[in-house]
Amino acid sequence: MAAETALKNELLEGLQALLGDRVSTALAVREHHGQDVSFHKGAPPDAVAFCQTTEEVAAVARLCSAHATPMVPYGTGTSLEGHIAALRGGVCIDLSGMNQVLEVNEADLDCRVQAGVTRKQLNEHLRGSGLFFPIDPGADASLGGMTATRASGTNAVRYGTMRENVLGLTVVTADGRIIRTGGRARKSSAGYDLTRLFVGSEGTLGIITEVQVKLYGVPEAIGAAVCSFDTLEGAVDTVIYTIQSGIPVARIELLDEVQVDACNRFSKADYPVKPTLFFEFHGTEAWVKEQAERTEALASECGGSAFEWATEQEDRSKLWQIRHDAYWAAKGLRPGSGGWATDVCVPISRLAECILETKRDIEESRLVAPLVGHVGDGNFHLVYLIDPNDPDELHRAEAHCERMNMRAIAMGGTCTGEHGVGYGKIPFLQAEHGEALSLMRAIKQALDPQGLMNPGKVLSV
Amino acid sequence: MAAETALKNELLEGLQALLGDRVSTALAVREHHGQDVSFHKGAPPDAVAFCQTTEEVAAVARLCSAHATPMVPYGTGTSLEGHIAALRGGVCIDLSGMNQVLEVNEADLDCRVQAGVTRKQLNEHLRGSGLFFPIDPGADASLGGMTATRASGTNAVRYGTMRENVLGLTVVTADGRIIRTGGRARKSSAGYDLTRLFVGSEGTLGIITEVQVKLYGVPEAIGAAVCSFDTLEGAVDTVIYTIQSGIPVARIELLDEVQVDACNRFSKADYPVKPTLFFEFHGTEAWVKEQAERTEALASECGGSAFEWATEQEDRSKLWQIRHDAYWAAKGLRPGSGGWATDVCVPISRLAECILETKRDIEESRLVAPLVGHVGDGNFHLVYLIDPNDPDELHRAEAHCERMNMRAIAMGGTCTGEHGVGYGKIPFLQAEHGEALSLMRAIKQALDPQGLMNPGKVLSV
Repeated sequence: MAAETALKNELLEGLQALLGDRVSTALAVREHHGQDVSFHKGAPPDAVAFCQTTEEVAAVARLCSAHATPMVPYGTGTSLEGHIAALRGGVCIDLSGMNQVLEVNEADLDCRVQAGVTRKQLNEHLRGSGLFFPIDPGADASLGGMTATRASGTNAVRYGTMRENVLGLTVVTADGRIIRTGGRARKSSAGYDLTRLFVGSEGTLGIITEVQVKLYGVPEAIGAAVCSFDTLEGAVDTVIYTIQSGIPVARIELLDEVQVDACNRFSKADYPVKPTLFFEFHGTEAWVKEQAERTEALASECGGSAFEWATEQEDRSKLWQIRHDAYWAAKGLRPGSGGWATDVCVPISRLAECILETKRDIEESRLVAPLVGHVGDGNFHLVYLIDPNDPDELHRAEAHCERMNMRAIAMGGTCTGEHGVGYGKIPFLQAEHGEALSLMRAIKQALDPQGLMNPGKVLSV
Repeated sequence: MAAETALKNELLEGLQALLGDRVSTALAVREHHGQDVSFHKGAPPDAVAFCQTTEEVAAVARLCSAHATPMVPYGTGTSLEGHIAALRGGVCIDLSGMNQVLEVNEADLDCRVQAGVTRKQLNEHLRGSGLFFPIDPGADASLGGMTATRASGTNAVRYGTMRENVLGLTVVTADGRIIRTGGRARKSSAGYDLTRLFVGSEGTLGIITEVQVKLYGVPEAIGAAVCSFDTLEGAVDTVIYTIQSGIPVARIELLDEVQVDACNRFSKADYPVKPTLFFEFHGTEAWVKEQAERTEALASECGGSAFEWATEQEDRSKLWQIRHDAYWAAKGLRPGSGGWATDVCVPISRLAECILETKRDIEESRLVAPLVGHVGDGNFHLVYLIDPNDPDELHRAEAHCERMNMRAIAMGGTCTGEHGVGYGKIPFLQAEHGEALSLMRAIKQALDPQGLMNPGKVLSV
């Protein structure tokens, strides 16, 4: 087995002594753990350690630290910017076996889970409690991974992102200590906010092994609706007015006409092929009705069609399934193509301008790239559909992507609203953060002096 | 002038060259700047530098850094745990002259202000825009100070604390560099969350000179009500059920019977002398009515009285003025006494237990200490009324305070929900954070290697 890995024998033996057969150096396992679902090239780790407890993770970290060997944490492998590529080899720490819901505190609307618990698993666990966990990135990601990438999804406009919903963490440091950050109090002014420092740190400062998150009561009533617009500006203006009016819309999702066409084909729907908003409202019966009426009036002023309602659970599920299948629908537009998903986020006042310039640039770049967006947050995604046998097309997409990121930053926005940096977005951080990057580097150096934690990600150190 | 200060001549001359007569070494000015409104003993800085721009703050920081001299930022001096005491002398950097609202982005519901802008000044500036800034600590504090202490107030249960409402910052580092953190996008996954690292860092990692915050639309309708209970448990259970039901109550404040009595005397009110909740609801007319009816029904099940309504602006203002005057009302219970305000925060399921044990301990300790609380967050405050000529009473209060903090921590809570650490809460951080403190110290060392930024606060380094 040792022939297959570059790992030092002594370290490998230490891992085996600790985990028994829960260490693998098989090439297939290593390759699987080094490639996320993105278009970015993966890199296999030298070994994969399947951990089941925080203490095991800490012991692995101490071993790796003693041997100056990189560590890359792994949840479900669904990251989108090359986060799990073992660029400098080392040990992948697979946390998917840490999948226990440790406690649910119904009175306090919070729970504690191991890092490998996925969002769907958590909501399945909560079924019948009257509570739910709202953060829903496209994939059925692990809570640890969602924390590490500061993930969000369609509900963030109402319920916030992982930044707002993580109360506390258990983290293993680079040298293998176990720390607890935050706590169960809803607010605290007691010291530095280590919790939010680790949220979004992508495994580069420590390994998240447990997550305490907020929960919410399942709304009494839910209403969902679809509304199409002749112009993209009309759709975006509707979003702006809705947010400004303080209507606490739970979801407000934009699909451009290219994406609607793709969804119609993929999901056998027949929405008008126009810029379209998908809405959801949460509350009491009366309050949902009032929110919806007010929003429909705003949409109408902006040239929107009458709302097409989905009030029954079955219809709503179908509607959101169409939205969640957007990526696969997009890929269906060009069978055989590779899908490269990327995201940016801008202040909402600049959203229409940013999207329109981006779409003009897609056309001028001769690319196919449907657009969807969590537009209540100013966040939108492209999926570039790339012919794997056309390197020129890939180059045009890369150039387009760079322009889109720089455009978003120039508009006061960010090069990623929810996917994270991985290694795909590193080139844009200098433009976005400037001198602040030096503080990030100082913190990285302080918490990971050997540079062993997911090296090559976020800061390229 | 030099005779009055311990500051090195060369540094003082540098400051004078930079700021002219906006440097003071007068004893009265220095003493004023070294004592906050708390019961903790102040300590005057060696000089006070009145800065008007970020660049001036950076230049002062470079001078202090070159002379290895401590820096203590100052906003309005209304901190509550000795935050501004210049425990090791040095230069107080007074930011109160940095009081410009730099921009208001109505479409994006955000604004950027200089650190010295106070919360009331900002809301005055926003008058007529249809927007407001909800965070309301007791004092008319500066936004810079509120950011530095991670402040909140009565609206936090609905609108969050400074943690949730700061989008970005301009910060001067210990060595006098100017950095920008965060941005105007509502969410981002692009790198470490420096913004939230500085929120709550109390001037120990850098000096906040500008703050970008979220704004909210002024609600169409507002309803406020008062409800009294025979038992404290009834009041707290009402809070728990209200939060669990997902009713987005804007304010839910508890006054114990001692505080109600004090408020009646001070504000010439005639509330029943019982545990009492003050509520406020925000929304549309119909939605406010529905929220209030549902909450009243929950209160009634828990033994609450019928709601006494304040729907007119004038009546609401009177009601909340009574609440805001709670501190002065408390002091009125014992004329001539000193008021020592302190706060803790626990998971809401433990709130009744924590408050009842704390009140029993007050009685057993022969203290007078009215209790008020932002109970929707699990946060409550005591004001110990101390006879300045009775050292034994102060010792009993100190012992009580220590037990209350350790009780809150043992219940999964925190030693401060919104006041901050200053130097008053340092003794409790080890119990609350354990090994995580070592990471805070590593970050402090990385960003302030000379230990010049508000030394002696938060981490006692």
